[in-house]
Amino acid sequence: MPPSPVAGVSLETVSTAKAFGGTQGVYRHASAATGTAMTFAVYVPPHAPGARLPVVWFLSGLTCTHANVTDKGEYRRTCAELGLIFVAPDTSPRGEGVADAPAFDLGQGAGFYVDATEAPWAPHFAMWSYVTAELPGIVAANFPVDMARQGIMGHSMGGHGALTVGLRHPGRFRAVSAFAPIVAPSQVPWGEQAFTAYLGADRARWRAHDAVALIEDGARVPALLVDQGDADPWLETQLQPWRLADACAAAGIDLTLRKQPGYEHSYAFVSTFIDDQLRWHAARL
Amino acid sequence: MPPSPVAGVSLETVSTAKAFGGTQGVYRHASAATGTAMTFAVYVPPHAPGARLPVVWFLSGLTCTHANVTDKGEYRRTCAELGLIFVAPDTSPRGEGVADAPAFDLGQGAGFYVDATEAPWAPHFAMWSYVTAELPGIVAANFPVDMARQGIMGHSMGGHGALTVGLRHPGRFRAVSAFAPIVAPSQVPWGEQAFTAYLGADRARWRAHDAVALIEDGARVPALLVDQGDADPWLETQLQPWRLADACAAAGIDLTLRKQPGYEHSYAFVSTFIDDQLRWHAARL
Repeated sequence: MPPSPVAGVSLETVSTAKAFGGTQGVYRHASAATGTAMTFAVYVPPHAPGARLPVVWFLSGLTCTHANVTDKGEYRRTCAELGLIFVAPDTSPRGEGVADAPAFDLGQGAGFYVDATEAPWAPHFAMWSYVTAELPGIVAANFPVDMARQGIMGHSMGGHGALTVGLRHPGRFRAVSAFAPIVAPSQVPWGEQAFTAYLGADRARWRAHDAVALIEDGARVPALLVDQGDADPWLETQLQPWRLADACAAAGIDLTLRKQPGYEHSYAFVSTFIDDQLRWHAARL
Repeated sequence: MPPSPVAGVSLETVSTAKAFGGTQGVYRHASAATGTAMTFAVYVPPHAPGARLPVVWFLSGLTCTHANVTDKGEYRRTCAELGLIFVAPDTSPRGEGVADAPAFDLGQGAGFYVDATEAPWAPHFAMWSYVTAELPGIVAANFPVDMARQGIMGHSMGGHGALTVGLRHPGRFRAVSAFAPIVAPSQVPWGEQAFTAYLGADRARWRAHDAVALIEDGARVPALLVDQGDADPWLETQLQPWRLADACAAAGIDLTLRKQPGYEHSYAFVSTFIDDQLRWHAARL
């Protein structure tokens, strides 16, 4: 089931494998948004010929590529049962000629789902445009998706991505959830470092990429679901879910914030609860 | 829940993480069998204090460490539900001073679950003793296992390991199963290369490590379960499951050999069917 080139985009099939009755694929294409080759993964569950299926986007965290959740996320059984397409983009542009930093939390593997305006990042770090515009077009053109039924979830930095993308596209995503998200990047070291580098020192420009600030500024979604392990080493310093709880309470957003006792930050945590989050999405799709 | 040193073995906890209510751990110890440090993974499901749980061993395939099935096997949800401990050893000794070969299918990552008698392998390549004697003692001493209720499964080279270990220990393992196993290593290139190197040119000595030969020579188990993808690129040249079917038919062993249409050889295949194989084990444990 290799997708065919559509709309001027030549999609290279890196690999496909049958899994849980469907197809787990990995694809590569030349991205106009990032000016680099970009790789992403799509799981298509078993389905009737001609069917159009709801799609769940999964945005990954720091240091990850598409492969982390594809290898360790344990989403295929549930997606096969529920008939969900699952799309996993990369977290940044990559390669020679792309800016990078020695830190694991800046540069390649750490795109933070923004369009960088500052040097040296601006030429390639356009992950906001990539995940909100370019890749959706490619997915819509090449896979049996019903783009009227989309959900988005993410993990850590990707939880930040899912919340901000979801809050800024309330008509597009019927369900928004996250695992251990960075909810207020403007107020924690990971986000301050990344936003200063990518967006510059003017904090007013950060608010469009900060879930708590977006809610304070009027963004609304009907409901949010967040799972957070209470043994997560980043809980106090970088994640601070109480900031999201406070913002949602003030805004009247129905937030379900589940503290998961004993769980930390890895895919051992994500894989444990992704079945439940996918069911929450499917009920809304 | 770090296990404590027992019986002279100092067990180092490499990592633990809560997953599906239980604990996924990775441990390291100095092995007397191999003369090297050895790493293995154990998943302990949620359980009542003081309970002793049945244990399923998973032997991995060529190029793998404990990490492949631990990352990609998707066994934890089912083991948590069924109350199974899941043990994943490495596939060979490793490290400097350990013999190796440029080929992926010989040397480090390719121990073939035999005790090598030939140079340069004999000093360290003792995976038969390691998985049948040394590691069971360590697991019994350090985890809440009921060693009267053991099953064994494996993938590819590890399927060969599970079949041969199971056939030679019918009183120990109540359930034996495999994913895409090498069933007759003496008759296919992977096995011929490995057995010549590790056991020498005398083919009579290979029979104790060849599932089909063991059955021909009288080894018996009540039942075997094998899943085999029909899109597996190694099906015709290396795996040849019909040889096991013929041997079981002649011996009166109840073999369930399931051809899985469209599946190939990777963990996309293993993860799809491990839930079902674990249920088959649990029913016998």
